[in-house]
Amino acid sequence: MKNTFGNSISVTIFGESHGAYIGCVIDGLPAGLDIDEDFIRHRLDRRRPYGSISTARAEQDDFRIVSGVFDGKTCGTPLTVLIPNSDTRSRDYEYGKARPGHADYTAFVRYGGFEDYRGGGHFSGRITAALTAAGAVAMQTLLKKGVRIATHISECAGISDRPINDLQNDMDKLDSSSFAVLDDEAAQKMKDRILSAKKDGDSVGGILETVMTGMPAGVGDPWFDTVEGMLSHAVFSVPAVKGIEFGDGFAMAKMRASRANDPFRIENGKIITTKNSNGGINGGITNGMPIIMRTVIKPTPTVFIAQDTIDFKTRQNTVISAKGRHDPCIVHRAAVVLDSVCALTLADLLASRFGADYLR
Amino acid sequence: MKNTFGNSISVTIFGESHGAYIGCVIDGLPAGLDIDEDFIRHRLDRRRPYGSISTARAEQDDFRIVSGVFDGKTCGTPLTVLIPNSDTRSRDYEYGKARPGHADYTAFVRYGGFEDYRGGGHFSGRITAALTAAGAVAMQTLLKKGVRIATHISECAGISDRPINDLQNDMDKLDSSSFAVLDDEAAQKMKDRILSAKKDGDSVGGILETVMTGMPAGVGDPWFDTVEGMLSHAVFSVPAVKGIEFGDGFAMAKMRASRANDPFRIENGKIITTKNSNGGINGGITNGMPIIMRTVIKPTPTVFIAQDTIDFKTRQNTVISAKGRHDPCIVHRAAVVLDSVCALTLADLLASRFGADYLR
Amino acid sequence: MKNTFGNSISVTIFGESHGAYIGCVIDGLPAGLDIDEDFIRHRLDRRRPYGSISTARAEQDDFRIVSGVFDGKTCGTPLTVLIPNSDTRSRDYEYGKARPGHADYTAFVRYGGFEDYRGGGHFSGRITAALTAAGAVAMQTLLKKGVRIATHISECAGISDRPINDLQNDMDKLDSSSFAVLDDEAAQKMKDRILSAKKDGDSVGGILETVMTGMPAGVGDPWFDTVEGMLSHAVFSVPAVKGIEFGDGFAMAKMRASRANDPFRIENGKIITTKNSNGGINGGITNGMPIIMRTVIKPTPTVFIAQDTIDFKTRQNTVISAKGRHDPCIVHRAAVVLDSVCALTLADLLASRFGADYLR
Amino acid sequence: MKNTFGNSISVTIFGESHGAYIGCVIDGLPAGLDIDEDFIRHRLDRRRPYGSISTARAEQDDFRIVSGVFDGKTCGTPLTVLIPNSDTRSRDYEYGKARPGHADYTAFVRYGGFEDYRGGGHFSGRITAALTAAGAVAMQTLLKKGVRIATHISECAGISDRPINDLQNDMDKLDSSSFAVLDDEAAQKMKDRILSAKKDGDSVGGILETVMTGMPAGVGDPWFDTVEGMLSHAVFSVPAVKGIEFGDGFAMAKMRASRANDPFRIENGKIITTKNSNGGINGGITNGMPIIMRTVIKPTPTVFIAQDTIDFKTRQNTVISAKGRHDPCIVHRAAVVLDSVCALTLADLLASRFGADYLR
Repeated sequence: MKNTFGNSISVTIFGESHGAYIGCVIDGLPAGLDIDEDFIRHRLDRRRPYGSISTARAEQDDFRIVSGVFDGKTCGTPLTVLIPNSDTRSRDYEYGKARPGHADYTAFVRYGGFEDYRGGGHFSGRITAALTAAGAVAMQTLLKKGVRIATHISECAGISDRPINDLQNDMDKLDSSSFAVLDDEAAQKMKDRILSAKKDGDSVGGILETVMTGMPAGVGDPWFDTVEGMLSHAVFSVPAVKGIEFGDGFAMAKMRASRANDPFRIENGKIITTKNSNGGINGGITNGMPIIMRTVIKPTPTVFIAQDTIDFKTRQNTVISAKGRHDPCIVHRAAVVLDSVCALTLADLLASRFGADYLR
Repeated sequence: MKNTFGNSISVTIFGESHGAYIGCVIDGLPAGLDIDEDFIRHRLDRRRPYGSISTARAEQDDFRIVSGVFDGKTCGTPLTVLIPNSDTRSRDYEYGKARPGHADYTAFVRYGGFEDYRGGGHFSGRITAALTAAGAVAMQTLLKKGVRIATHISECAGISDRPINDLQNDMDKLDSSSFAVLDDEAAQKMKDRILSAKKDGDSVGGILETVMTGMPAGVGDPWFDTVEGMLSHAVFSVPAVKGIEFGDGFAMAKMRASRANDPFRIENGKIITTKNSNGGINGGITNGMPIIMRTVIKPTPTVFIAQDTIDFKTRQNTVISAKGRHDPCIVHRAAVVLDSVCALTLADLLASRFGADYLR
Repeated sequence: MKNTFGNSISVTIFGESHGAYIGCVIDGLPAGLDIDEDFIRHRLDRRRPYGSISTARAEQDDFRIVSGVFDGKTCGTPLTVLIPNSDTRSRDYEYGKARPGHADYTAFVRYGGFEDYRGGGHFSGRITAALTAAGAVAMQTLLKKGVRIATHISECAGISDRPINDLQNDMDKLDSSSFAVLDDEAAQKMKDRILSAKKDGDSVGGILETVMTGMPAGVGDPWFDTVEGMLSHAVFSVPAVKGIEFGDGFAMAKMRASRANDPFRIENGKIITTKNSNGGINGGITNGMPIIMRTVIKPTPTVFIAQDTIDFKTRQNTVISAKGRHDPCIVHRAAVVLDSVCALTLADLLASRFGADYLR
Repeated sequence: MKNTFGNSISVTIFGESHGAYIGCVIDGLPAGLDIDEDFIRHRLDRRRPYGSISTARAEQDDFRIVSGVFDGKTCGTPLTVLIPNSDTRSRDYEYGKARPGHADYTAFVRYGGFEDYRGGGHFSGRITAALTAAGAVAMQTLLKKGVRIATHISECAGISDRPINDLQNDMDKLDSSSFAVLDDEAAQKMKDRILSAKKDGDSVGGILETVMTGMPAGVGDPWFDTVEGMLSHAVFSVPAVKGIEFGDGFAMAKMRASRANDPFRIENGKIITTKNSNGGINGGITNGMPIIMRTVIKPTPTVFIAQDTIDFKTRQNTVISAKGRHDPCIVHRAAVVLDSVCALTLADLLASRFGADYLR
């Protein structure tokens, strides 16, 4: 349903990049959950621009919860978060020239020329602040049930991070990082390449790897509302995502089943698989192992290099070069957004399976 | 909603591998569409087992439309297709031992031991016959609007097909093929490798590439119901899919934006992009170019090689080797199923955008 | 969603009056429920035509469950019931003349002339057999949780039944009755009036009162998915229903609050209200008292008396008189259908509140 | 879906009586609609308390549209309206004593004691201001398509208004009235009775009649999403509604079909019915005649008279008398809210039938 996602716990997002507010409404949360505003602030901070490798737009994300919380706890009714837009410079945008890789032209066709084009309007990455706030609420409920989510930059501008190999410590490190890379040397190389692309007026992309631990086995459905289907439905809303894979993903194309299957074992009374090529999901349903997901983030389309394009108002061929502020890389900022949409999806899957009060 | 998918045109699927019938209900179709049962039969035939590289289970797929069609045309009410199961051998399955890579264990946890385990029950690839029938109905409506869908095996067991380079002719060739490969030599090599894996009691996977042409620009939504999000939600229902990408997908991780962006041009009065790295979708919305999608199909989990596993009834470690019939490769059979879920999704997106009567 | 209703437990119905099958798919049921086919048969029998006061169309309703049940229990996947149509006489219908009070004209506009008009097609009361079968499944799950539903004819053709005053015994009596009236004398008078109307080629209507006991307090939501809203959404699908009220309903218009409010009391440790003007619902949420609902069933529109109408094909004024078989009253047959849609709705509300496994 | 209603055009509401804001998000509107804020203000004013017959709580309803509108027109993305709460007196409420007829006890059970009880929280009639704002937006789109909605008090405290007999003029009069009664003498008598009830510390109810004109024939569906089913689903969200009927409604119980059926005629090339007992709906689908709907509004439960009740915290029997401000009648204030939910429902039905751009 367009701007609403989720069956049992749903989120509705709204807002334009240069409008008064962006925000979200989360419905279906159980009553009685402690809401920690500092945690929401921490998550929003992690999404905010980061030093010289990000845009100069400096939003304070001074959010306010205006419904659904009473005496610091959810009261069971829709929880609404408002985030004001303050640092907007609409003059940086000219209407008509389609920025390649952006949604200017498709928005024009979709909305018949009435779209709010300023700063990308409703298509702006800015809207992911609302998703991040919503996700921060969902993460709080999940943490109480032992479900944890973290994302690292497994590749950026051609540089790879080391894999996650120590779940507990690696997730701790990622939680507190604004540039979520496990190997510090790789992180530095990535930043160098981002700055190099920036100098060229260009931008870079990468791959994010998300790990979700603590999900009980038996959640999800075999058709349509598979865990993979629900996560991917939500994840493709994150701007710039063009691909997603679970477990060994595309690498499974070259495997035989004897290599791709994950043997089951009982260890210390617990059912596990001895490897996790299937990313914690069999037949669309969680098997109790960590859910492993990788998404590709394309390079930010805004570049200062001249590109061929059209003016869709005049229907003429033309050329465009970006002006104003922009991100030479959004991979690091997208990490926290991916966590967020995953948190919303897992919370919904758990509530659909066990009832919302399970999350209390 | 579990076994129902779609907002404006929805499909509900039902049935177990060894039950009386599998089937589907399609709701929201406009009235007055000609229904060509031969076309449905042709599509079902393409999904059926194919020679020595497929299972020996020989279902006739003798389907029957039992509602929603009157005098050869849709009458606007739910269209129901029934497909009987006839060639079932339940004795081939023993309950308790979890086949690695399959859903036996997750089904057990999800349904508390009451699942119909015979032949994989509701998790069986058999159910995709119902999706194929539904998709064949959707494809008929799309074809009338100039929307066409075809899938080829771009990689199988490590062998690559040539890319689609002549849309019209290549799609024609794929339409009539039971092993949808464009390069005949590559096709032969793939089959050899499948038979080689079969001899080893093992199985292989691959990558499918789907092309969808003729979609008008301006369809889809920026958040949640993006074209990528809707397609992936449906596609992950196809058993064995573990990854999906659009346009250049994961390869975009290593590109800069100056390479990844698709320049717009007006040619002969038509707005196009001069390349299609974004797979026909910008900001979640179609831009009028072909939609390009690739999915990875993991190797069929059933193998005749002994694998470690558990007996979930007794909670003991044990070993399993497959018995009975199985597919050493399902990539070629999955091709037509992918077409089908894409057809259902595109028909739904068009009806949501323009009203169902647009499809009449 | 058109022919699908319910959030957590949903039902999809399909079929036309003179098609091959009508049927339903119920999704979201917990696994492990015993399915008693005799109970379904009993419920379908209660819906079947009844002696001289009903149509002569004699359908055997020889239903078959074709998916979702394994070894006599639900297996957690969609449960599909098929009911063949056998006793059809399509020649009784002529296309073009709109029967007043029926959906002939609106179906023509809605489906553009492609509707299956034979026997009322998808609009036929015949389809309620599918609802009845689905409702019988839902009732079985509810009964295990102590939730019970019964409907009596509180008024028919101007004759009133006595009120329900002994919940247990009155509901027992209604369960086994094909003409659900508590006062036998009133029942006889109603039948006399029905036969009198029949002799005149006319038909009569009435009011049904449904009682639902055993629902726990705290189910439902304050906005949109109120208990009243969900029930009424489902109930207006029952053909001929033109009004619905809860508790004292329309009579509350003339009350003051001091009379309309229901005082709370604790009796033997249980919270009750000392009267039940609000019909067991406060603020859209169950309060633990019986849910009381009344619906008006308009007189069956088919009459043998000449009526002014149009031929919508030729757009000419004309006159119509019914031919063939018909029901001079459907109030008694509608009773079991109302039970059924209420059962489906309550099962859905409980599953949405507590998770589907609550119903196991 | 709890606080979200509608398939193609949906509304989500949020807020508590004494929270910071109440509001709504409307999604699915076509782009390019002129939004007249004065019209929204006018509608909100009509809902506001009215002289001595209403509560003394004086909210300014100083709403603000914070998303979805650009240069005075919808831009196709979610339209969000915020309305601040300013005049709140939380001290008037004590927690634990269940006010009979209110949702205090059911909210306690539903939300486990975490509900925001101040001023009725999310159950408060205050939230209908958000519905009214949303409805005002929907009404603007409908008016452009010739669809008009008006509600009058057909009965209040036992006094009846005259029927609507001159559609155009009567609807004009109702549009501009804060006490929507056609017969001025009846209006005065109603007000007298309201004041008399107020003097007694009691309150009164009534019946509202809503007329919707200009809907094209052929909108709605035969099962579940019938026009009656969709309207009633929305209408029972309006607090205090306990019954709804269409056309002649409950009066049809005593009619024969020869009286209840509406003969069709062609007059001046237009298909009409010569009377409208079916309220403009046949088989769940509009027939082009005015939709006629009546709803009963129970007397406001708050009374200053002592009533038996319980303290649900201590589980003791006790007595309660209201303190603070209250409405001795909300029938007149509910009229505009009913218009609003009907407008949202009709806009959704039209967009589902013809696509959202139909409303542009």
